[in-house]
Order: sequence, then C-alpha cells, then structure tokens
Amino acid sequence: MTETFVVIGGDAAGMSAASKVKREDPDLDVIVLEKGEWVSYAACGMPYYVKGDVEDLDDLVTVTPEEFRDERGVDLRTGAEVVDVDPENEYVTVETADETYEQPYDDLLVATGASAIEPPFGGLELEGVFTIHDMDEADAIEEYVTGRGPETAAIVGGGYVGIEMAEALSARGVDVHLYEMLPHVLQPFGEAVAEVVEDHLRARGVDLHLETAVSGFVGDERVEAVELEDETVPADVAIVGVGVAPNTDLAEAAGVELGPTGAIATDEYGRTNYENVYAAGDCAEATHLVTGEPDHVPLALTANRAGRAIGQTVTGDPTPVGEIAGTAIVKAFDLGAARTGIVDEDRAREAGFDPVSVTISASTRAHYYPDGAELTVTLIADRESGQLLGGTVVGREGAKRIDTVATALTAGTTVTELQNADLAYAPPFSPVWDPILTAAKVLNGKLE
Amino acid sequence: MTETFVVIGGDAAGMSAASKVKREDPDLDVIVLEKGEWVSYAACGMPYYVKGDVEDLDDLVTVTPEEFRDERGVDLRTGAEVVDVDPENEYVTVETADETYEQPYDDLLVATGASAIEPPFGGLELEGVFTIHDMDEADAIEEYVTGRGPETAAIVGGGYVGIEMAEALSARGVDVHLYEMLPHVLQPFGEAVAEVVEDHLRARGVDLHLETAVSGFVGDERVEAVELEDETVPADVAIVGVGVAPNTDLAEAAGVELGPTGAIATDEYGRTNYENVYAAGDCAEATHLVTGEPDHVPLALTANRAGRAIGQTVTGDPTPVGEIAGTAIVKAFDLGAARTGIVDEDRAREAGFDPVSVTISASTRAHYYPDGAELTVTLIADRESGQLLGGTVVGREGAKRIDTVATALTAGTTVTELQNADLAYAPPFSPVWDPILTAAKVLNGKLE
Repeated sequence: MTETFVVIGGDAAGMSAASKVKREDPDLDVIVLEKGEWVSYAACGMPYYVKGDVEDLDDLVTVTPEEFRDERGVDLRTGAEVVDVDPENEYVTVETADETYEQPYDDLLVATGASAIEPPFGGLELEGVFTIHDMDEADAIEEYVTGRGPETAAIVGGGYVGIEMAEALSARGVDVHLYEMLPHVLQPFGEAVAEVVEDHLRARGVDLHLETAVSGFVGDERVEAVELEDETVPADVAIVGVGVAPNTDLAEAAGVELGPTGAIATDEYGRTNYENVYAAGDCAEATHLVTGEPDHVPLALTANRAGRAIGQTVTGDPTPVGEIAGTAIVKAFDLGAARTGIVDEDRAREAGFDPVSVTISASTRAHYYPDGAELTVTLIADRESGQLLGGTVVGREGAKRIDTVATALTAGTTVTELQNADLAYAPPFSPVWDPILTAAKVLNGKLE
Repeated sequence: MTETFVVIGGDAAGMSAASKVKREDPDLDVIVLEKGEWVSYAACGMPYYVKGDVEDLDDLVTVTPEEFRDERGVDLRTGAEVVDVDPENEYVTVETADETYEQPYDDLLVATGASAIEPPFGGLELEGVFTIHDMDEADAIEEYVTGRGPETAAIVGGGYVGIEMAEALSARGVDVHLYEMLPHVLQPFGEAVAEVVEDHLRARGVDLHLETAVSGFVGDERVEAVELEDETVPADVAIVGVGVAPNTDLAEAAGVELGPTGAIATDEYGRTNYENVYAAGDCAEATHLVTGEPDHVPLALTANRAGRAIGQTVTGDPTPVGEIAGTAIVKAFDLGAARTGIVDEDRAREAGFDPVSVTISASTRAHYYPDGAELTVTLIADRESGQLLGGTVVGREGAKRIDTVATALTAGTTVTELQNADLAYAPPFSPVWDPILTAAKVLNGKLE
C-alpha cells in the first residue's frame, strides 16, 4: 500500500484519483503536479464559453484548487512541471518557476492528457489561428472574437471540436466555413449520422467543404485567408481541430510502454509495465468491451472513471478501470448525434465479426403528440451470434437514447434481447415501440 | 398450423397479432371480432385529446379499419361481440346488430383488454361523471368540458389517468381537485417520485387531497359535488380513474384459467390452458423478469409485443411473448416520472431479495450548461448478489433515462456493471457521470 501517491496532471483522471485516495485514506500523502494553472476543468465546455452560453471561464472548473487543497487535503502544486520520471528509483523531477526538485513516490499516476494535433501546414503561428486545447486558448478565442469581430471563420476539421465551434462562432455572428478532408464529418459516427448532420449544418448556414484539404493559412501577422489546393478563401479567424494525440513523451522517456494505438498501454487496473506506475485519461489506452482490444478514446467519463478506480486500487482495494464502448454524443446546432460500440463495418470485420446493420427513422414521440422529432437510428450486429456491436442515433431530441444501446453493449446482449427490452412508453416521450426497439426489430428481421 | 386465426378484441394486442399473421402468411384467414367501432387506437393519447394537444380523436387511431381490411387483408368485423367461446368444439358465438352466428377457429386469441374499475359509490350515473375507458368516453369528456365550461373538477385517483387528466383539465381552465386514498399519488413509482410530483402538482395549482376517500357524487341529474367522509366539495365535472381490471368473464366462462393476479394465465408463448387459445394484452398476465412470477401490468408495449409474438407463433415460428419489467413513464405537467422493475422494498422482500436502495438528485446537464434540470433517481438492488432490481426517475427532462435502467434489468446486470456502463457525455446532454451512473455509484458504496 502506498504512503505517497504522486499524480502527474491535474485534470479529470488525475484529480479523480487524488480525491478518491484522500477520501479512502485521509492519512496518505497525495501530491498532484500540474504544469499549468488550471485544474479539474471541463474542456468539453470550452465551445460553449466561446458561444456565450457559459458566462465565465471559471464556471467550467468543477472543483477549485482551494477546494482540493483545503477541503480534500490534496497537496496540489500548480506551475509544477514534471520533466523526468525515474521508475527504478521511484521519484520524479519537478521544475517550477523557482526551483527544480526530486519528488519520491510509492505509487505514480501518469495523467498527462492529450494535445491538439498541429497539422503540418504553414501559418499556424499567425494571429487569429487557434487550436482549442486548453482553457487559455478558449479565453484567447473568445477575446479575439469579441475584440476583432471577425466576419468569416475557417474551421479545419469536422470532428467534435469543429462542429461545436461552428455552432459557437455562428452564434457569435461569424460566417463559418468548415473544411473536412474526408468525405463526411463526424467520421466515428458513420455515414447515416453524418448525412443528417451535414444537411443540418448547411441549413444553419455553415459552408461545408467536404473532401477538401487545407494546406495552410496566409496573412500579414494576422490570418487573412485559408489556402486550399487550388484556391484561397478569405478568413479572419481560424480554428484547427483535427484531433488530439496522447501526451506520452515523459512516460516513454522513462521506459513506460506504449500500446498499439500510440497511447500508454495499461492493464485492467490501469497499471503500466511498471508495477507502481499507473496511467489514465487521455494519455492512456483502455480496453474496448466489444473487441476486447486496447483502444484510445480520449473522453471525460473514461478519464474520471479510471482515475477513481486507480485511487481505489492504490489504497488497497483493487478496482478495474472498466472497459469502454467509445460512447460519445455531440450537439450540432439543434441536433444531437451519438454513437457507441463498433459502428464501422470494416472495423467489425477486422475484429472477427460478420456485421449486419440497419438504419431506421422514427418519431421520438407518439405520432399524434406535438413536437416530436425524427430520430435516425443505426444498429449493427454480428450475423451469426446476433451479438449487438454498436449503434448511432441522431435527431432534434432523443440522442441520449444511445445510452440504451450502450447499456445493452455493456451487458453483452443480443439484438433479440434488446428488442425485448421493456422500454418506457407514453405519448409525450416515445411511440409504443421506442425507435431503438424498432431498429432492433428490423435488424432482427435481417439476421433471421 | 392454423388455417383460421380468430381474434377477440381489435386493439393493440389483437391487431398486432392479426397484422403479423397476415404478413407472415397472407393465405391464412384472420378474423378480428371487435364489439365496438374503434380499433387500434391509442388509449394513452386520450388525455391529450381532452387537453387540446391532439386535435381530432381520429388522430389517435394508428391504423384505420380500412387499412386493416384493404391493405393488410384482415377480416375485421366491428360491432361483432363474442358472447361465448367453446374451446372443446373450437368456435366462438358472435352477436351483431343483425344476427348471431358461430365462428370456428383453429387458433384463438383472447385480447379483450381491461375496463376501468367502477368504485362502489353513489352518483356514478350522474351527468358529468366520467371514467376514461374508451374513445367514446374521451369524446364525451371533451364535449362536456367544451359545452358546459365546468369550473371545478373532482378527479378521483392519483394514478396515470388521474394525473394526466389533472393536466388536461387545468389546461382547459378548470380548477382541479385530485383525490387519492393512499398517502401518495403514483403508488407504483414509490415515494421519492411521488413527493416530487406532488410538489409540482401543487405548484401548478392542483388541489391535492391525499389519504382522502371519496364516498360518492351528488347532484340533481348533473354532478354538483363530491362527497368525502366529513365534507362535500363542489365539482361540476368528475373523472374516476381508480385503476383497471382485466376483462376475463368471457374467457373464464369458457374454462380458461386465470392466474394469481386475476388476469388470464399464460405460458411464455402467451398460451392459456387450452393448447390453441392464446391471451395477450390488458386481459392477460405476463412474466416479470425480476421475480420470474406472473404479473399483470396492462400497458401498450406489452400488448403490442405479445400480440406480434403470438402472430408469429401461430404461423409456425414459436416466439416467446417476452418478459416485462413493468416499465412506465408519465407526464405530470412539466415533469416526467418513470419507473421500472421492483421499486417497493416490501415487494422485493416477498420475492426473496434483501433490498437496498438509494435516491440521489443530479443535474441532467453539465453544471455550467444552461437549462439543465434536477433529475431524482432511485435505484434498488439485492444486497448479497448486487443484482439490480428496479429504479425510478423524475424531473423536468431526462425521464426517458429510465430506459437505461430497464435495459440493465433486461440483461440481468449488477449495480457494478451498471456503474461501469459507458454512457454518453457532452455538456448539453449530461454531466460527466450521468445521474443514473451517479445513483449506481452511490448504491454500490452502500452495498459494499
């Protein structure tokens, strides 16, 4: 059992672990080393700060540094960067503005997160070009939009960040161009979702450029345009959101092994190849519950859950970090889009399944009840076993119905079992057969 | 295999079975005998017709008699009352306005539904006193409210019908008094839900009389007041919604056995004690998936599903009717309230469990995201096995999250498994830990 638990990184995974350890055993020393000033903040909320739905950036902080220190008894050190890990001798080297020191540990958690990928094109240094990787950046975007009143935005990347920022900037009166290299936005959600989202983005005034590669930004100090293969489009603010990569340099240099996805490899307890070095959150792999293979899906719940479990484990109560289904949900203007499990048929085949899928559309409420919305549901299953593999939903309401599919995946149910689930019906909430049940019924028909 | 499939009763179970049989084998004779004129109508929608949300009573009809006859090829006979079943000789006796005849069958489905219970008190025959058991009654209520412009309503019974009619009549400008004999409304939803709903009903102007027995109505031709134990309260319209009882007389007279709940006993295929006589819908029992015992929960999805399965079975593809969790959801003004599984601790003990439960309240969205609502979640589990037994939710949004719990019940998961479900998170849709996960986490802590 640990006496000194050291955590590198003060966001979701790190602070969940630190808090859990102190709750389980207040006598232990828990030290969190965070190189920045922000801890325990909701990165997912940043687009809504830019949009204006969240008034104050501080509102995104779940627990303040003072609360961690005073109420939870965590020795939280901000402005403290770990520059080296020595797993043999069990200490980390810490640099602050004033000093460099060695901090011994009994158990160590690497929770260094992920960083926005900077694509290899020119002009990223221009004023008005942003990635949205941390709170200071969110602040800077908001300030730029307010101060400069840009007219046209170039958003590069049609993932979560790109779509959320398209909504945010539109709400701020900016004309939005969204550039996506692939044939569709929201690639992990599959085509059925993408098509509905794309129609809606266009309807809401977003100028969508699919299969369009951006090669860089041009401007004189400030960004003035975005360069495409054969044209240059004016833009006076640009957001680059082309994905994130796990922050693994520190761990790698210390001999911590990475997995096939490039993130830190961990066992079911979040342990790395060193017995007393754990990794969790956006820098670490997790096990996918459908494939049983390591996967890297950097999302908040996974980080929180793994951090909490590791906190429990290091206090002597071994607790698995849990498997993931890659469940995700995103708001795109008036739509909600969600996914869980394996959605892509090729990926299903690689994992050894024979995928069959259906897409249906059904109302979220009884046909005669006012204000229902069309929900498009895709379900995918293995032909022989009938095992449910994944699903997606998209619509103006009801996107959280993905949780029904995610719960079914967690439980390893078949499509027949899902079809027989006794879901809730009343006219204001659902048709008699919930759209998820209808999709299961149709998919079952196809499996027979 | 059947050549002539006869169905008694033309609503959810009956018409689902009839349609399924014709879809599977168009050559079979499918005869539906319905004593009234309405078929395949959404009884659950009637309150919203009275409220004014649904313009036309016909909108509540899912499939019209013409569609059944012409498009689906069902021999649908309305105004055709079955007055006798002879299971030995395999025919039913049918009375119409013009004739009485014997109709032979190979397979028979009894789908006679349920009727509103008429409590044993005086004045039920007065003008302005209604139960809400069929479409004609819904029409009559609407007409009465429009024609008479009643000022004060007495609603007897705080179940679904009572609460939905309270909302409907309030919306029509009627002052509503709701009388419930028990200490709480919505008895099957448990206290945690009832307390939230009761506060909300009062806030929306409903005069709630709990633990108050009504002994009858008084008036001269038309209802003028409701009689309580020691006072008389004015009322110029009254709705009685004190529950429903299965319509079993016809079946019982034919020697079809009833189960412990008083509804028709059936096996997993919906078969009665006669090999070729099935029963489904509000007149029949179903198996509760948590207790494994027969139960009577007359709801639309159960009826539709069982009817469909029986349709499949009689065409030679034996299909279980499915087990039920008693999942239900109800709108109470701005609230949604939902339940699934076993909610009552005494009932859990009777079924051999050692129940432990928790109730938590959490926001439906990230704390910083606008317009979130408080969702109150109760989960109940067995102490030793950790098996999830049931749950409830109530709040201004998110009541359909009960489906997550219902799906977990269907899959027979433990609280730990539910806690580890990878549910969807993004600020507009959920906190990082969905309220259902938070409840599971807290309950798990209590189980350890």
